This record gives sequence, structure tokens and C-alpha cells, in this order.
Amino acid sequence: MRRSLILARRPKGQPDNATFTMTEDPIPEPTAGEIVTRTIWLSIDPYMRGRLSDRKSYAPPVAIGEPMTGETVGEVVVSADPAFVPGDIVQGPRGWQTHIVSKAKHATKLPRGAAPLSAYLGVLGMPGTTAYSGMKDIGQPKAGETVVVSAASGAVGSVAGQIAKRAGARVIGIAGGPDKCLWVQETLGFDACVDHHMPHLSRLLAEECPNGIDVYFENVGGAVQDAVFPLLATFGRMVMCGMVAQYSDAELRPGPNLGPVVGKRLRIEGLIVSDKPERFAEWRALASPWVRDGSLKYRETVIEGLDNAPEALRLVLTGGNFGKMLVRVGADPA
Amino acid sequence: MRRSLILARRPKGQPDNATFTMTEDPIPEPTAGEIVTRTIWLSIDPYMRGRLSDRKSYAPPVAIGEPMTGETVGEVVVSADPAFVPGDIVQGPRGWQTHIVSKAKHATKLPRGAAPLSAYLGVLGMPGTTAYSGMKDIGQPKAGETVVVSAASGAVGSVAGQIAKRAGARVIGIAGGPDKCLWVQETLGFDACVDHHMPHLSRLLAEECPNGIDVYFENVGGAVQDAVFPLLATFGRMVMCGMVAQYSDAELRPGPNLGPVVGKRLRIEGLIVSDKPERFAEWRALASPWVRDGSLKYRETVIEGLDNAPEALRLVLTGGNFGKMLVRVGADPA
Repeated sequence: MRRSLILARRPKGQPDNATFTMTEDPIPEPTAGEIVTRTIWLSIDPYMRGRLSDRKSYAPPVAIGEPMTGETVGEVVVSADPAFVPGDIVQGPRGWQTHIVSKAKHATKLPRGAAPLSAYLGVLGMPGTTAYSGMKDIGQPKAGETVVVSAASGAVGSVAGQIAKRAGARVIGIAGGPDKCLWVQETLGFDACVDHHMPHLSRLLAEECPNGIDVYFENVGGAVQDAVFPLLATFGRMVMCGMVAQYSDAELRPGPNLGPVVGKRLRIEGLIVSDKPERFAEWRALASPWVRDGSLKYRETVIEGLDNAPEALRLVLTGGNFGKMLVRVGADPA
Repeated sequence: MRRSLILARRPKGQPDNATFTMTEDPIPEPTAGEIVTRTIWLSIDPYMRGRLSDRKSYAPPVAIGEPMTGETVGEVVVSADPAFVPGDIVQGPRGWQTHIVSKAKHATKLPRGAAPLSAYLGVLGMPGTTAYSGMKDIGQPKAGETVVVSAASGAVGSVAGQIAKRAGARVIGIAGGPDKCLWVQETLGFDACVDHHMPHLSRLLAEECPNGIDVYFENVGGAVQDAVFPLLATFGRMVMCGMVAQYSDAELRPGPNLGPVVGKRLRIEGLIVSDKPERFAEWRALASPWVRDGSLKYRETVIEGLDNAPEALRLVLTGGNFGKMLVRVGADPA
């Protein structure tokens, strides 16, 4: 039997227990060109809040009554496509489900043993590639520049900051709480990390960035953005990756007055990783050796069991995760 | 004798009669490498409000007791530099003065008869080059795209829109009042022009831009920006040239929530024309034939006499000009 978390109703504010319903049905047979996978890892990411809402967005929402969407790593159990055989490990099938029927062309076979399977949903997957594309295509940090990354301990921010360090920049993280800040500074090697729970965030940041901020990698919005924006330096770049602090808000707060964009010649630019699909393979090739040699650090929060995926999403939306959020849905392959 | 308008005190709000004082002193002798020009045309531009303020900006303010700054076209009357002789017509000396002592290297000799001299301060000068650089370096309108230009009848906006028309875009102007709108549509050839004095600006714009706005050339800010921002299309570009509506405001109003920058992958980028000095000669070479053949339209508002320069600046800051604002300070050359 297959278990699926179905979108039951659109949440107001944070998603809660009434947002999803668990269903059970027999595992379907694949038709030609399809595969069936047994889910091992389910990725939980901030963008998912957008899929719960029928507010106009770059991607259509999940329909009421349909399984919630999310990328997985799984093991092929039945294949109706010549490219896959049972036992293959793949990344790409989407759904909050124990078993997923998907088009084979949406699945990518993963090598065994090159990296932990969960890494393909985090540091080597969509979040890592998002950080890479944001820095390569928009932020473009140079040696000696000051780079600030919000949600610095998160799946995207932790990689974004490490890329900027490799480019020779001075990197300041912003994270929620002393544990995350300590990890960002000690393990990731950022030059400093500011706790956004502290009062006077703006002053603390200004002290760490005496020459202003050349690149701001924006993941959160809200009060953190308010504190960063006035500190942007002339020709500063703002990589607009996400604003998770407001994804569950009914009313959007106003943003910064854009006058300084003229005077400082700022560039504020948005990023959706799927716009440049070639970045995925580029990043995997570049970063896999760094994952193997341990020089690219990452951290995961694992929640056990598909039933707890809604709670995992709530944690991601409220900063309750630490690093990449994953749900373990099934056992590792034999 | 030389007459000069001196900055007497920094205005709060709009500049007024107490902002400047007229002084008279003997015309100084130039030292080696300097020239003295008799001013013919003085350019009046929105950026000047910034020079009256000691609020931090990309350029230092004019000091109290110093002549107000502004670009001129004038005739060389005394030269202490081998590159110039009396009678040469030049662009570049800066000052609200009947006679200006300037470094010869800051002056550019103008051809006689190629274009009206005032054009070198407008359509062929800084404002025209600003429009050109903004479209070439940031806006990059493509055939079939929708381009919106605010202050569409102004020195910059009128050129920006005509460049976009030449690129094959559909161009919608925003201007203040029916006379300006008529001129923008009938003479400049924009596809439509919306009067920002009308109620429901946002709805009027939406009607003219059924597929959204691909490029917004921003000159004004304020309520016009509020109306345009939600209409920006996916991958829209916002050329941040100026926000004249707020230059005299003590408190800056908030801007738009930046969430759509992510979802729509917007690019919001600021422009100061002097950052790319090579654009000046490029644009003059490109546009001079269009001025000669009459295909590049422009309009001027001329105020007579240096005494009235403060009033000319007030008009520019409140939308009271129509096209390029100029002060005639002295007679044309013989």
C-alpha cells in the first residue's frame, strides 16, 4: 500500500494539522515511460509555502485533494522505462508519498557511495545549486568585498557563504540564536555571525561591516532586510533568493524606499534556480569533490516518518530547523 | 562684472528665495590651463536638489557660500590654455554664473551649426545620455515588449521612450496633465500616455499594459512607482534613474514589498550616467543625425535670465517644466 499526504485545505498563516490528510491506496502500476520509486528521503524547503497558496506565483499551487509536492531521493521498485531497473537510486520524483509514480525523464540516477544520498537534496541538490547560481549569476563576490548572508545556517545560506569565502570575500552570517551563530562561525568559517534575535541588529551589523555590504544574499526579508538595506555599499548587489519570514503573512509589509538604489547604483535581482537548469550539473561537478574531502560543510535536521512532514515544514518556515531539513520516509537501500 | 548665484542656506522642502543669493564681483583672470566662458545656456536638472542637501549622496553637496553647480554651454572670452581661443563655443563649465572660470580639460568644444547649442545640454547631453545608458545597460527593451516611462515628457523620459520605440517595444508614458500626455503620444509617438493626476492610475496603467510591464524607466518614485510595481512582468527590469517626487521630502516613504522580486525574477538597478563616461560620445554620435533629420523629438522650457534659475529649479522639482528646462543666461554667439 502507498501512503500519501494530500492537501486538504489552504492554510491561513502557518500550515497546521488540518492542512494535510494522510490517505492510503494500492501502489499503482507504471505505464510506459514511468517508474515507481520507494521514497527514502523527502526534501522540505521554504518555497513549499507558496505551493499551498493560491496567491499568484511563478509556479501553480498544489490543488486541493492532490499529494503535496516535494523532491525526493528513492529506490526504483518497478520500471516501465528502459533507462531504469529496480534497485536504481534516483533523485527527482516529487510527492509527499511513500511510493511515487513519475515520468522516468524527471528522474536522475545517482551514483552509489559518492556522497550520502541525502546530500543530493541539500548541499549537492536544489539548495546548493540555488546558492551557486545566486552567487555566480547575481552576487559575484570579489576578493576583499563584504558579503552578508541571511539564514546563514540554512541549506542555501550555508553554501552561499562558503562560496563567497572561497572567492576571498569577508563573509558575515545572520542566523537565529547562539547555537546557529556558533556553527556558522566555527564550522562554516564565516568571519562573523550576527544573531537576529538580538536587539540593535542594525548596529551589530554595521559594526561587522565598516565598509558597507557589497553583496547581500537575501533569504528571509522582514526585519533582517530592514537592517541590511541601509548598509548596502555603492554598487552593492542584493541576491533575492527568498523572504521566508513573510511567506505565511496575510498582509505584506512595505519594503525599503528605493531612493538609495539610484544614488548607490544598487542591483536587486531575483533568482529561481530552475531558470538556469545547467547550473545543477555544473554545481554537482564542482562541489562533489568538496563534499568528499570535507571542505564544504553542511548540516541536516532529519525528521523521522512521512507523518511528520507537516511539522518539518512548519519548522522550516519558522526557523526551527538547523541546516537542511529532511524527512526520512524509508530505509536506506540494501 | 560677473554675477553668481550663491548657495545661502540649505532648504527644507522645496528650495525658495532664501536658498540662493546673487553676488557680483570682477571677472577673474584665468591661470594656466584655465578658461573663462561667458554663459549662454544653463541646464536645470532634478539631481540638483541632492546638491543642496547635506544628506549623504553619491556626490558631495555644494558648500554654503559657493556658487550653485550646473552644466553650461558658453563662449570662451579669455583662454589660458592652448586648446581654446576666444570665440570657441564649449560645453562643460559648471556654475550658476554669468562668467565661469574652469579648467580647460573640463570643457568640450562644440561644432557650430550641427545642432542648436541648447541641445548639447538636453537631448544630446547629459539627460539624453542618461536615457541611452539606462536603456542600453539596464532596460534592454526588446521588440514586442512593453516599456513604461515616467516623467515621459521630461528631458530624460522623452528620449528613453523614443529609444524603446526604435527597439520595437510598445511604449507607455506617464506624465502630468493632458497637454504633456498629448505631446508624448502625438509628437513623440508613444503608444499611449497615462496622466498621473487622474484617479485610478494603477487601473489605467493595467489597461494599457495587458501583458504586464517588461521595462520600467523610473524617474519619479512615489505614487507612480506604487502603481507601476505590481504590474511588472516576469523578468521585468526597473531602470532606477531618479525619484524626483521625493527629493524635497524630509521623511522617505516606504517602498514596495520586495517579495515579487523573487517570484518574478525582477531586476531593479540604479544608474548614474557619469559611471560610464564613454556613453556620452557614443550617444552624441548615434543621436546627432536623428536630431538633424528631426526623427528624435525634444522639447525645451526656457526661462530668461540667471535671476530666475531658482524658479526654474522649483519648476523641475514639481513637474512645472515641459521637456528640458534651460535658463538663458546670455545671448547666442555672433
